[in-house]
Amino acid sequence: MDKSFILNKTSSRSLARRGQLFTAHGKVETPVFCPVGSQATVKTLTPEDLKSVNINMILSNTYHLYLRPGIPIIKEMGGLHKFMNWDGVILTDSGGYQIFSLANLRKLDEGGVSFRSHIDGSTRYITPEDAVSFQQDLGSDIAMVLDECPHSEASENEVLAAMERTHQWAKRCLAAHTLKSQHLFAIVQGGLSPELRRQSAEYLASLDFPGYALGGLSLGEPKDITFETVRHTLRFLPENKPRYLMGVGAPEDLLEGVSCGVDIFDCVLPTRVARNGAFFSRLGRLNIRNAAFATQKGPIDPDCNCYTCRNYSAAYLHHLFRCEEILAYRLATIHNIAFLSNLMQEIRTSIEKDCFEEFKADFLSRYQPTNEAIRIEQKQKWLFGRNGEPPS
Amino acid sequence: MDKSFILNKTSSRSLARRGQLFTAHGKVETPVFCPVGSQATVKTLTPEDLKSVNINMILSNTYHLYLRPGIPIIKEMGGLHKFMNWDGVILTDSGGYQIFSLANLRKLDEGGVSFRSHIDGSTRYITPEDAVSFQQDLGSDIAMVLDECPHSEASENEVLAAMERTHQWAKRCLAAHTLKSQHLFAIVQGGLSPELRRQSAEYLASLDFPGYALGGLSLGEPKDITFETVRHTLRFLPENKPRYLMGVGAPEDLLEGVSCGVDIFDCVLPTRVARNGAFFSRLGRLNIRNAAFATQKGPIDPDCNCYTCRNYSAAYLHHLFRCEEILAYRLATIHNIAFLSNLMQEIRTSIEKDCFEEFKADFLSRYQPTNEAIRIEQKQKWLFGRNGEPPS
Repeated sequence: MDKSFILNKTSSRSLARRGQLFTAHGKVETPVFCPVGSQATVKTLTPEDLKSVNINMILSNTYHLYLRPGIPIIKEMGGLHKFMNWDGVILTDSGGYQIFSLANLRKLDEGGVSFRSHIDGSTRYITPEDAVSFQQDLGSDIAMVLDECPHSEASENEVLAAMERTHQWAKRCLAAHTLKSQHLFAIVQGGLSPELRRQSAEYLASLDFPGYALGGLSLGEPKDITFETVRHTLRFLPENKPRYLMGVGAPEDLLEGVSCGVDIFDCVLPTRVARNGAFFSRLGRLNIRNAAFATQKGPIDPDCNCYTCRNYSAAYLHHLFRCEEILAYRLATIHNIAFLSNLMQEIRTSIEKDCFEEFKADFLSRYQPTNEAIRIEQKQKWLFGRNGEPPS
Repeated sequence: MDKSFILNKTSSRSLARRGQLFTAHGKVETPVFCPVGSQATVKTLTPEDLKSVNINMILSNTYHLYLRPGIPIIKEMGGLHKFMNWDGVILTDSGGYQIFSLANLRKLDEGGVSFRSHIDGSTRYITPEDAVSFQQDLGSDIAMVLDECPHSEASENEVLAAMERTHQWAKRCLAAHTLKSQHLFAIVQGGLSPELRRQSAEYLASLDFPGYALGGLSLGEPKDITFETVRHTLRFLPENKPRYLMGVGAPEDLLEGVSCGVDIFDCVLPTRVARNGAFFSRLGRLNIRNAAFATQKGPIDPDCNCYTCRNYSAAYLHHLFRCEEILAYRLATIHNIAFLSNLMQEIRTSIEKDCFEEFKADFLSRYQPTNEAIRIEQKQKWLFGRNGEPPS
């Protein structure tokens, strides 16, 4: 595909952008949030559920699919779209992030990375060329280069080494990539160092990828640092290419990311917290387990028009969560994805009307974000405690 | 409601019956199988899912709803139909069976039964009048009397005492029942004794209930004994009233029950085994975890037209089960309920055409039931091992 992205409009008072991403499975209006379907399913949902809340782009994880069911099986089944019965857009992560956060006993050499599967402990070895080949076999619409994502406590030298390896691997991925219907995006690394981020963005921009992701962020660092780094890095990336901020999905962060000029987001947050009983609302996250909901006749979010809010009282959802009924997790997930889908639609409309900044200020004036200290603690607990289980 | 049941046709070569059950939430074609929604949800499914497989009658459990969320909450929410967003027919079990199988420290006296909640250990006391009042508050279409269900190893004296108490309680339930839009069914007890079953059926028939259930069966006894008892007991119940065999739901058992003259069945089996990866098919139950399914491109059951079989390969279902993805449980449940719904439709059509016996013989000639010894072992393990968790 020659043209992967059209930039339609830029806000006159911020860097917010309104665009369109073109893929082999259709057009995506940006800025967009992609729900995560790590194992070829957005947890609890069917493709129809996703379409019912106007989602037409999801993310899946090459690392997880490589381990189960294995890339050859999905290839034999006709590719990932057919395997999971999803005819919308799929972006696949390369597996880099998962290898560096989930797998054990990583060992890097010039060629690639060896690691132990977090599922069965088997030893695996993956090269940048493998990561491209796997994603071509999956047939995703957007593929990512294999990158090295340093830990948040990595030393400056480690961050530098990871960035340089990411650059070499990006070049090799680009050379190995042959599937014309698939866009291959680069991943900018460089930790929290403005200098390294600039170097990384400039180097990768020189290779002329059809899109650029910002990796290695939202790993527990304070949010102002995250967005300072995003804003700084995007200055060195081409305006006419889509920018993808990996692992960001809280409503307040989506607004901030958009105002920095980000076009694509993904995160397990809305689906993961849904399964814990946290429902997004205009006022902040609501915990359905709170006793106050036990007798609430109306929906949990009166402003919402999703299947869950149209059909079920907060009292019923409270009951389902209390009884750990499986239906609870699906109903909560539908709501949270609908909430973010609507939010992104409103963001896009506000950019078109050049009133994004007012929309953002208005939203944030009512929305109570999850406490920063609690958020960092939860995130770090999750990052360090999840060994052995998938992240979504 | 004056007339709850019309008997349209009886097979010329067996006792199979084709009828219609009339309720405040619509007409039910019989013979019918009711999926179980113990806690105000048929596990994993929405009302739309149930309707998509032509289910218009479900069972819910007063015992479970009494403990969580509590009857007053459901009453305040406008009744069980509104609470769970189901406008089809609901039959509620009285709680008798659950008190005698799930709860701890049961103590019977003339008035009722005290027991400890299997959820939080709290002491509760329920009378037959309470059981009726609860079900009237729930607003179910068909309610059951409170009965005493003896253990399968109970002595003859214990079975006799339980039967006599069940009779006294049935009379008290009938006297307490005032909700005209709700049918109150009696429950025949008497263990495996032909003499006690006759006495129980005759006594309850004399009280002129609008319908009769057969309780205390399918508790691990050999199947030929079950159906011998069913056939024997039904001889002493009025022809023009619906007969409900509680806790039976395997395909081969539904056919046998229908041939004895049963009109209504319920069982957690199809939904419970679905969540373990067992899919019904015309050849018997298929275990989706078998390696052979890992690469099967077609649906697990090529004869099936349900949402799951229309949209997903066996390979994908195998993958979802292997990864313990929540979507797996819903897709399997949809299939198993669709399978039984179709089976009951075929049974009804065959009775209309007076070829039920041929249909039954043909079905059984291909269907491989689960091995009897394994079945009894599984059932007893389940009956004795489930303390502390709901049965579906």
